[in-house]
Amino acid sequence: MAEERAEEFEREEDDYRLDADLVDEILEAAEQDEAERVKTLLEPLHAADIADMLEQVSGHERRAILRLWGDEIDGEVLSEIDEGIREKVISELPADVLADAVRELDSDDVVDLIEDLEEPQQEAILDALDESDRAAVEQSLTYPEYSAGRLMQREVVTAPEHWSVGETIDFLRRAEWLPDQFYHVILVDPGHHPIGYVTLGRLLSATRATALSEIAEDSFRTISAWQEEADVAYAFNQYHLISAPVVDDHDRLVGVITIDDAMSVLDDEHEEDILRLAGVGDESAITDTVLETVRQRLPWLFVNLLTAILASGVIAMFEGTIERLVALAVLMPIVASMGGNAGTQTLTVAVRALATRDLTESNVWRVVRRELLVGAVNGMAFALAMGIVAWIWFGAANLGLVIAIAMVINLIMAALAGIVIPLGLEKLGADPALASGTFVTTVTDVVGFFAFLGLAGMILL
Amino acid sequence: MAEERAEEFEREEDDYRLDADLVDEILEAAEQDEAERVKTLLEPLHAADIADMLEQVSGHERRAILRLWGDEIDGEVLSEIDEGIREKVISELPADVLADAVRELDSDDVVDLIEDLEEPQQEAILDALDESDRAAVEQSLTYPEYSAGRLMQREVVTAPEHWSVGETIDFLRRAEWLPDQFYHVILVDPGHHPIGYVTLGRLLSATRATALSEIAEDSFRTISAWQEEADVAYAFNQYHLISAPVVDDHDRLVGVITIDDAMSVLDDEHEEDILRLAGVGDESAITDTVLETVRQRLPWLFVNLLTAILASGVIAMFEGTIERLVALAVLMPIVASMGGNAGTQTLTVAVRALATRDLTESNVWRVVRRELLVGAVNGMAFALAMGIVAWIWFGAANLGLVIAIAMVINLIMAALAGIVIPLGLEKLGADPALASGTFVTTVTDVVGFFAFLGLAGMILL
Repeated sequence: MAEERAEEFEREEDDYRLDADLVDEILEAAEQDEAERVKTLLEPLHAADIADMLEQVSGHERRAILRLWGDEIDGEVLSEIDEGIREKVISELPADVLADAVRELDSDDVVDLIEDLEEPQQEAILDALDESDRAAVEQSLTYPEYSAGRLMQREVVTAPEHWSVGETIDFLRRAEWLPDQFYHVILVDPGHHPIGYVTLGRLLSATRATALSEIAEDSFRTISAWQEEADVAYAFNQYHLISAPVVDDHDRLVGVITIDDAMSVLDDEHEEDILRLAGVGDESAITDTVLETVRQRLPWLFVNLLTAILASGVIAMFEGTIERLVALAVLMPIVASMGGNAGTQTLTVAVRALATRDLTESNVWRVVRRELLVGAVNGMAFALAMGIVAWIWFGAANLGLVIAIAMVINLIMAALAGIVIPLGLEKLGADPALASGTFVTTVTDVVGFFAFLGLAGMILL
Repeated sequence: MAEERAEEFEREEDDYRLDADLVDEILEAAEQDEAERVKTLLEPLHAADIADMLEQVSGHERRAILRLWGDEIDGEVLSEIDEGIREKVISELPADVLADAVRELDSDDVVDLIEDLEEPQQEAILDALDESDRAAVEQSLTYPEYSAGRLMQREVVTAPEHWSVGETIDFLRRAEWLPDQFYHVILVDPGHHPIGYVTLGRLLSATRATALSEIAEDSFRTISAWQEEADVAYAFNQYHLISAPVVDDHDRLVGVITIDDAMSVLDDEHEEDILRLAGVGDESAITDTVLETVRQRLPWLFVNLLTAILASGVIAMFEGTIERLVALAVLMPIVASMGGNAGTQTLTVAVRALATRDLTESNVWRVVRRELLVGAVNGMAFALAMGIVAWIWFGAANLGLVIAIAMVINLIMAALAGIVIPLGLEKLGADPALASGTFVTTVTDVVGFFAFLGLAGMILL
């Protein structure tokens, strides 16, 4: 029974992946120009899945699908679609379809939709909105990219602080519009400053006569519209916020951010970290063309080439040494490789700890010390292992000694570089993940080759 | 004005980091045994921040703080604290304090708290719960680790499908307990199968006479208790869920998962990916001791050592070649390094695309082809660059030709390894991030050295 369960547990891994057979069927229907069949197949899908499907098919196939199904597209599909191909999709759509699609969206989704578009496409979308929505979107756009002001939606449910539960419910019942999703009623003073909030659960479970102020939450955080969205996402995750009011410079309520948007920022931030650590342009997507991909990756490979040439320069300094003992050429990449690996380990832990605010002034010295000790311990362990291997392999105890010492030196340097480089980048106001990998392996290559070949020159020759 | 704003935008980067001065003050108060001052300083802090503080101080300092402030600790602090030191903190607390702290928590937090504890500590906590809470927690624990059944909270707000808005509100007002946070009322049939849900916003804005079934959401997803939590987190992010009902094998409602828990799973999954890619134990934390850290990292370094020795073995095959032309020893790390870098780029993009379900059967061939083309284009670009550098450096056009050809070969192989290895691991049911980095660089080292030195042997000597 337990095994059966475990097996089921295994199999469910595949959940939520877009079914390849379904995609094939859609493509077949599109190819045969069967508009009705395409519509029927897409009808039950969630907007996010339709967006994924449009991303996964080729440009040619996408155009075929849009030709047959394009007027059914809704705003949600557009806002779910990856930026890279969103522009292409939008340019395929008739103006009236686009206008209808956009009018359904909350202001934050419209902002997200248009901020990366070209001017004419932006204008077309703004023109489709009614006066007040347009003003809301345009005001959001005055805040910097990746700020809370861009992330927030302008549609907010507020109540004066002196209202009762009954008054609030009556107001909500009369309201002509309400956001699709809202989780709190924000209490505001006469100057429209948020001063607290009430969860809908409490509103529903309190008697009509209860004053809102009595059931307001204890903890209450506002977010500045100027704050970076990465910090907003962190705050939501750290404090388990569900929604948070956004305020302008005068602490007046200008919008609200909900957790689903914060969650997708968290996801994007992570993508950025992992891609930056690998030296891939952080906007890279699976839908990019060959040319776009080359353009993103080539600059980082070029930086790597320069650092690799630098490391070669170190080897060149010892050409004479290698000439006299070619075993050195065989062994030298091991020292460099172990250093690179150990440095990357430390670097990754440090970058992650900085992102989660777990590495702070309070513990930085303890962490640096720990990394150095770990480097020393691992260094000695692998010095011993590799020393013996080299000794047996080349029958020279001295050679074993040289590689052992070089290993200890390089693994300590790797630890140092792995922690100091991201800390330094952070101090300089740069992203600690940015190109750190390349810097760290430069250090470990240079130190590795220099220590090993230099020691060999002194001890062996 | 704009500049002033930009500056403020910059400065706010520091937000939400625990203030180092405050931590210093707390430590000072603890050292001087001033219990009142410690309490006053900690009072305004959010539980998550107190947990962070306890993680960032040394073991000695932590014990001092807990001695003075321990009886104030609440369940939320315990559930926020990192697993690594949670056990230590719990063992410092008197039994009655622990019992009080745990009783405040929702069942999902209790499960999260005890699942990694040793048996006796688990028992102590379970004993503190009343009968029904204990049963709820124990039932959650029957589901596998990292499953939806562990993540869900058992406290669910339900209503029979035939109720009206008025009946539901009256029920909520009379209810003796309600979860701290809830966002939906789940409609159930007489067999306790969930059949839809109503958002609290709709409940509040509809008239009392409205039937719940009329205002139920169109889209409705249930989650199997056996599903992996990583997939749950994906579903929340993909479909913008706020909460989702969890069902057992008979589709009966057993609990509910809320987005804040899904968000922290998403964050944990990211951590796992990034650490695994770097060959760091995925449980690694900034609070680990030197010994724990060594134990996590050493096995991966050992794997790397074996692959490095393998690469050295390839070089050893060409000892004679290198002896006759020592420039080869100088240049060979460049080919390997460029391959390693390019392979890591492809690998990272592939691992990420698999995690976000953007790489599927529908587009896998297109992506593989793209990566190979990118490898070829980058290979040719750097073949040209490095060919010229080698030619000038060593004054030998032939040597430039050799490194150029080796570069193209290795960058294409890097692309192939970078995409095929994670795909293969995924097919085998393993995590594509796991150790992929080491496998990929093994391929690029071996191919790099073999191609460069082999070609040199054929063309130059």
